[in-house]
Amino acid sequence: MEKKSFVTKEQIEQIVKTYPTPFHIYDEAGIRANCEAVKEAFAWNKGFREYFAVKATPNPYIMNILKEYDIGFDCSSEAELVLSGAVGADGEHIMFSSNDTPACEYKLAYDMGAIINLDDITHIPFLDEIIGDKYPEVMSCRYNPGGVVTMSNGIMDNPGDAKYGMTEEQLIEAYRMLKDRGVKRFGIHAFIISNTLTNDYYPMLAGQLFELVARIEKQVGIKFAFVNLSGGVGVAYKPDQTPNDIRVIGEGVRRKYEEILVPAGMGDVAIFTEMGRFMLAPYGELITKAIHEKHIYKEYIGVDACAANLMRPAMYGAYHHITVLGKENEPCDHKYDITGSLCENNDKFAVDRMLPKIEMGDYLAIHDAGAHGFAMGYNYNGRLKSAELLLKTDGTVKLIRRAETLNDYYATFDFGEYGDKLIR
Amino acid sequence: MEKKSFVTKEQIEQIVKTYPTPFHIYDEAGIRANCEAVKEAFAWNKGFREYFAVKATPNPYIMNILKEYDIGFDCSSEAELVLSGAVGADGEHIMFSSNDTPACEYKLAYDMGAIINLDDITHIPFLDEIIGDKYPEVMSCRYNPGGVVTMSNGIMDNPGDAKYGMTEEQLIEAYRMLKDRGVKRFGIHAFIISNTLTNDYYPMLAGQLFELVARIEKQVGIKFAFVNLSGGVGVAYKPDQTPNDIRVIGEGVRRKYEEILVPAGMGDVAIFTEMGRFMLAPYGELITKAIHEKHIYKEYIGVDACAANLMRPAMYGAYHHITVLGKENEPCDHKYDITGSLCENNDKFAVDRMLPKIEMGDYLAIHDAGAHGFAMGYNYNGRLKSAELLLKTDGTVKLIRRAETLNDYYATFDFGEYGDKLIR
Repeated sequence: MEKKSFVTKEQIEQIVKTYPTPFHIYDEAGIRANCEAVKEAFAWNKGFREYFAVKATPNPYIMNILKEYDIGFDCSSEAELVLSGAVGADGEHIMFSSNDTPACEYKLAYDMGAIINLDDITHIPFLDEIIGDKYPEVMSCRYNPGGVVTMSNGIMDNPGDAKYGMTEEQLIEAYRMLKDRGVKRFGIHAFIISNTLTNDYYPMLAGQLFELVARIEKQVGIKFAFVNLSGGVGVAYKPDQTPNDIRVIGEGVRRKYEEILVPAGMGDVAIFTEMGRFMLAPYGELITKAIHEKHIYKEYIGVDACAANLMRPAMYGAYHHITVLGKENEPCDHKYDITGSLCENNDKFAVDRMLPKIEMGDYLAIHDAGAHGFAMGYNYNGRLKSAELLLKTDGTVKLIRRAETLNDYYATFDFGEYGDKLIR
Repeated sequence: MEKKSFVTKEQIEQIVKTYPTPFHIYDEAGIRANCEAVKEAFAWNKGFREYFAVKATPNPYIMNILKEYDIGFDCSSEAELVLSGAVGADGEHIMFSSNDTPACEYKLAYDMGAIINLDDITHIPFLDEIIGDKYPEVMSCRYNPGGVVTMSNGIMDNPGDAKYGMTEEQLIEAYRMLKDRGVKRFGIHAFIISNTLTNDYYPMLAGQLFELVARIEKQVGIKFAFVNLSGGVGVAYKPDQTPNDIRVIGEGVRRKYEEILVPAGMGDVAIFTEMGRFMLAPYGELITKAIHEKHIYKEYIGVDACAANLMRPAMYGAYHHITVLGKENEPCDHKYDITGSLCENNDKFAVDRMLPKIEMGDYLAIHDAGAHGFAMGYNYNGRLKSAELLLKTDGTVKLIRRAETLNDYYATFDFGEYGDKLIR
């Protein structure tokens, strides 16, 4: 599929008059259209809810848009719970899916009325210490099927090597323990593969979980309120990849639901999803300016962004498509490494990438940076995190996070003799 | 070599009364002894200076200790220049070795009188725009030998794929251009391999650079003031590795110096080094507490630190040795994955590591976190960066960076409607 930027050179030339590069920009229209599509795809399930994985794009302005579609928030830390609270989410609109959880975070999630999704059976005695015998009415447990999973398209993953969740035996014991503690409604959660590009993944996972909850209902004598399919629905980072079709995915899950849950008398179970990447990645771009060109053993273009703004290429060798704005129709006849300024040779947004000839001052749009982009930024080499902007449906631009300053970078020295010397 | 923590369980039990885990702690005595060793190893060269790579451990309290040994600072960003200024470094005690450099940073380095090390020949016209014809008296150029380098011990790297430096032809042209602009004293800089564990690396690199500068002096008619061997001297992260011996390294460089530079009439050239990792990594540890244990398909210990505090295991799969404090002499007969709390399965400090049986509340010292440890921290999942403490030579502990708070995490929302809602 051709990958087009949602901004034009002309738009960016206007925007940089107020907000200098680099910055992340998000496409409100795209976010909204996708929210609608997700809602429609699962409209057959009356309790359906997407819980946006806050870690993907922890920005309250973005979260506030999602909230209009009754989307909840999947949190796994105090900071994410507070962000969710700031946009007015509470109670069952928050899923607290954490592992290796500090006691204070369970306490906060509990006080906010969030649905707590337990990562391990040992977290029940841990929780006893925190909340005593006042367990919430609804709770969830995380399942890890173990072994190796192979999808029809050859994608493989090894849940048995993942730190998350419980075995089936532990799950049954955990539900019994929770039932004894007065919990009335139950959920299950499982995550197997990250960033899949197959419409079969969710239906496969759903089939597995539906059979499991049908077995457990009988065995433990509890009532399941929801099945949380968690994340794993990916996006097409590369132009030659076929994007997921959320309608086909929703239909696939519905078929499994009607095959397994309805006959088991469980036709009232709600389907939950936790799609960070699918909800946001394509609707955010990192905009950066070419500031250096270099010819040594290879051709390099240096830009004013670096891995501090988008770490996925450096950390995972991930492909992010790049559009040279204003040159969308020019031939891609130049081979470049696109580099940032870190003293790390992995600080390259692209290696041996065919692009149109780049001139100094050209703006580059780095695609699919809307999830796990800004969020994974670091301050290595003293580099500062960039601003986040929202391109609104009316075409105007709103600052939704200011860029870091040196004072932010030095803030943790404000207690001692260097505090003053470091403020510029 | 047996790897021992520089702190004991008893010390940590005292320290946590004031500073809760997780935190980074640095060993002042170790840092000082190593500074002495480096100084001694190169005492034969009268202009010798180590320029500490600030990116490794950007903390002014640590930098201030190094400064007592006349160590300078290798900077590559505005933030690092300001840190160096805060500890009173200026002029030729600062090396500005940047690539893909923004104009404002060249300006700051120039105004501070730092030695500017040019990454590319195109940076000369770029600099012309910034400083006009008022070039500094001393300047340096960065060399990239290209090709593939193989060391005697089989270590290989491919400088030709690295984004740094210039070819020999460009170097010659660059020195000519700088000479024309009135520069009087010249330096050269090269970096080939990261984190080597062979005493031959620096002598090999030195030999290459000494021959090169001898050729260039004749060809261009300039006077070299220094050869900067840059970084690459590594540390033994694993117990079965043999640490570098800085005295042997210094001697090896001296032999090359006497073989090549002295006969060329260049016996007054200063040797510079830029050792971030070697100067600090072994003298910093991340201290964390075991808070969860989990048995599924593997055995897990969950600790209160995560990749936000130390990213190398997650990013590079790097090995960091772990000591369970107080259990130094117990048999390592338990196999664990040691995990942090991030919703990322790569957030594991160790995989299948043999350790003594770990009880909840045990303190773990994660070794060799003194360089590229805190510095590479991120805030993924809303996790906060930890404090840095200095274990002083007198045995007392000093806070040298406070831990982040949620208010730090939310600081970049202080411009808009969410600012107030996010302050707790």
